[in-house]
Amino acid sequence: MAMGKSNDMKRFLATAIIMFTIMGMSAQICTKLPMAEDGIVRLSRIEVYPQFLDEYMKMSTEVGTTSLRTEPGVLTMYAVADKNNPCLITILETYASQEAYKSHIASPHFQKYKQGTLHMVKSLELCDQTPLNPNNTLINNIK
Amino acid sequence: MAMGKSNDMKRFLATAIIMFTIMGMSAQICTKLPMAEDGIVRLSRIEVYPQFLDEYMKMSTEVGTTSLRTEPGVLTMYAVADKNNPCLITILETYASQEAYKSHIASPHFQKYKQGTLHMVKSLELCDQTPLNPNNTLINNIK
Repeated sequence: MAMGKSNDMKRFLATAIIMFTIMGMSAQICTKLPMAEDGIVRLSRIEVYPQFLDEYMKMSTEVGTTSLRTEPGVLTMYAVADKNNPCLITILETYASQEAYKSHIASPHFQKYKQGTLHMVKSLELCDQTPLNPNNTLINNIK
Repeated sequence: MAMGKSNDMKRFLATAIIMFTIMGMSAQICTKLPMAEDGIVRLSRIEVYPQFLDEYMKMSTEVGTTSLRTEPGVLTMYAVADKNNPCLITILETYASQEAYKSHIASPHFQKYKQGTLHMVKSLELCDQTPLNPNNTLINNIK
């Protein structure tokens, strides 16, 4: 009887591990750090010169994808373009800590994006934000 | 042997159901609709009169919480305040479809918020957006 229960528990744990593995694979994303006291929630507002918009969007998408997939401290990197003027890009960026942000801007993929898009960017504003409700949280998935 | 496999399958399914139920409970959120062709991703930019900021934040948090918990078509409602000027609020709103948006603005909780905050709002801009990368998606949880 005790052995039966022990086997049931093993099966339960094995199934739980399988379920979480399947879910983790479907998200194709690294395990994320929790938000620390010194975490950052930011709206980056970027105006791109129209002639570079397509190229900018490709590079921005590439750096966002790599950052989300590989950096445990990059919690969101969600970029949108204004429907009335697609040159106005807003990125909701969330970093788990100041350390995570420093690590992000030092990464080869960010440096490639930053140096590669300098001439495409007309203006850039980094506007740090405070979430209104700490119980309201986002999970950012990337395929 | 066949009976053993059948029982294993039953245990697997039962465990899967338990796992998803636990996860569903931890999110305390209704099942969400998929994003339709006519879905909306919006940045609402609101400037609040300073004397009403605390009250506005309470009402905004309340309507966001109720909408996320109860409306299948409200996919995100994530509100942030600018650190340099907390009267500047931005809300990332995602609706699964035009229908879902219409249902949201007709809801009693939205109408209570809208009518109750009219005198608090100095300006309001609804800026519809196009996500740069359709493979980059957000899940908005609320406790």
